[in-house]
Amino acid sequence: MEPTRSGPPDPIIELLTTYNELNSSQVDQLLEVPSALEFMRYVRANRPFVVRGAAEDWSATRTWDIEILKELLDGQSVQVAVTPAGNADSPTRNNDGELVFVKPWEEQQPFSEFIDFISSQEKSSKREVSEVRYAQTQNDNLRNEYAALFSHVEKDIPWARIALQEEPEAINLWIGNSRSVTALHKDNYENIYVQITGEKHFTLLPPLTYACVAERELTPASYVRKHDGSLEIKKEGGDKVPFPTWNPDGGGHETKYSKYAQPLKVTLRKGDLLYLPALWYHKVSQSTNEEGICCAVNYWYNMEWGGSFYPLCNFARSAGISALNS
Amino acid sequence: MEPTRSGPPDPIIELLTTYNELNSSQVDQLLEVPSALEFMRYVRANRPFVVRGAAEDWSATRTWDIEILKELLDGQSVQVAVTPAGNADSPTRNNDGELVFVKPWEEQQPFSEFIDFISSQEKSSKREVSEVRYAQTQNDNLRNEYAALFSHVEKDIPWARIALQEEPEAINLWIGNSRSVTALHKDNYENIYVQITGEKHFTLLPPLTYACVAERELTPASYVRKHDGSLEIKKEGGDKVPFPTWNPDGGGHETKYSKYAQPLKVTLRKGDLLYLPALWYHKVSQSTNEEGICCAVNYWYNMEWGGSFYPLCNFARSAGISALNS
Ligand SMILES: O=C(O)CCC(=O)C(=O)O
Ligand SMILES: O=C(O)CCC(=O)C(=O)O
Repeated sequence: MEPTRSGPPDPIIELLTTYNELNSSQVDQLLEVPSALEFMRYVRANRPFVVRGAAEDWSATRTWDIEILKELLDGQSVQVAVTPAGNADSPTRNNDGELVFVKPWEEQQPFSEFIDFISSQEKSSKREVSEVRYAQTQNDNLRNEYAALFSHVEKDIPWARIALQEEPEAINLWIGNSRSVTALHKDNYENIYVQITGEKHFTLLPPLTYACVAERELTPASYVRKHDGSLEIKKEGGDKVPFPTWNPDGGGHETKYSKYAQPLKVTLRKGDLLYLPALWYHKVSQSTNEEGICCAVNYWYNMEWGGSFYPLCNFARSAGISALNS
Repeated sequence: MEPTRSGPPDPIIELLTTYNELNSSQVDQLLEVPSALEFMRYVRANRPFVVRGAAEDWSATRTWDIEILKELLDGQSVQVAVTPAGNADSPTRNNDGELVFVKPWEEQQPFSEFIDFISSQEKSSKREVSEVRYAQTQNDNLRNEYAALFSHVEKDIPWARIALQEEPEAINLWIGNSRSVTALHKDNYENIYVQITGEKHFTLLPPLTYACVAERELTPASYVRKHDGSLEIKKEGGDKVPFPTWNPDGGGHETKYSKYAQPLKVTLRKGDLLYLPALWYHKVSQSTNEEGICCAVNYWYNMEWGGSFYPLCNFARSAGISALNS
């Protein structure tokens, strides 16, 4: 497979090229939401799809703007992730030059203050910013912290519930501006991601590209707000965090296999829906609407651990570790 | 994972033990035939199931016996696989002691002569036999050679057709006695296997056990009938045939990984149906009914090559080859 070497082909290169030969480098576009059976075919293949406008009739999509959100959340505080450069949950160099896995500083803020902050930051012409804020708690926040908004979205995704035979494990709201980027990572969930307003730009890689993403064991750390208001990285105790350090959009670390990965790109606009299959690597950046905000909702369904899929993905990871260390 | 060695765990042992931990060592038994969606969940997991009595109402199951089969196929000749010991398509030592992949001698025989032969052989008390016969052409024979019987079985499996979105690629009839054993092998098909009369005993292994089955590159060969009627192995030209040489029921070659495989066993009786997922290794032996025959029908549907399943199975194979040769 690799033209410049002799001897037997490298099984990892063969895996990556076989996958690319047998699969499209684009995300399928469905004309309407799938039936449970049609959805299950995508789950089986562990392949993403987009349905344009699937959520255009949702009350959230039709009505949410800053004024209405403030009204619905009047007087409420919300948990906000604060970082100097929009880099929550990402591999970042600390002052000693060490690459650590940095979590955001988390702070309760009145919702109205938070949303005015992200909106006016977006609309300002200043390039330098003191900090970036992102509501991204991923802890089922739409059925808790943001319960006042929940009736404006579907309470679950019927075709996913029927196919997967369960209720969503978590439903999350995401509100931010174009300063925030979610670093390449994967989740143990089948993910139905719905854009309410603004745009999200996804870069996607299938789970079997493990050997391409330059996973490193990083020391966990967090931003901490100092008395003068600035943010400082503090290392934490506890286990190291295995995390990709490759940036498929350029930069970051590479491995000798990165060049064989074929990232899929897709942009979600108002009302679009993405099925992001379990264990897919995803990197997500965003653009805002005319009010300077970007808002999305996603539904996490537990993935299936039985069968051959998870053991084989885990094998691609273990074999990747072996190959990269040998 | 492997207690006696230090250093990082062997990814292949981890693959096999993870699979065994996450999956049952028994074949699921469904109470009735699945819906297309329920079936798709099994296809996704690439896991087998049995439905007892699923075909008990089929005309074939209710009515076929030697007399009726002879009547329906009156005057017809059929293609029969002839071997000295019931070993069609199996790794066998030739006179030089070389392990070759031996195909059966194929012969046209009047159907009535063929079925009388297998029946009376089964009922005879002789241990030694001159030859074993098996109708096993696997070339869509039920819609061709045996077309006169086709209306007695379902013309396809509706839930499989709907789920997989296609007609069966082949429908095959199998008629033999307890002398024939089908050696461990795999097929690129989703297989719906239906027992009409007698019993079949399946030993099953998932595709990711590649490193356990001791695949060898064997010289292709065939039995050839000599003038005196006896059978002799003749090597053929052409590519070597990669074929498992492990016998999960004992014997054959082993690899250092064979002990980690957990074979699933299931016996099909009159009217039972088995879903045998794509790429699963299967070894099949048989018992006859009171007339001394065993008869089954199976439906082969094309497997899906897209998605991550096939590339990952192929990777388990390539990585297995590397590990076993290093
Ligand atoms: O929207 C984002 O910033 C990230 C989304 C994400 O990581 C997820 O839905 O799992
Ligand atoms: O019934 C047999 O002897 C073997 C069946 C088989 O190999 C198959 O259905 O693919």
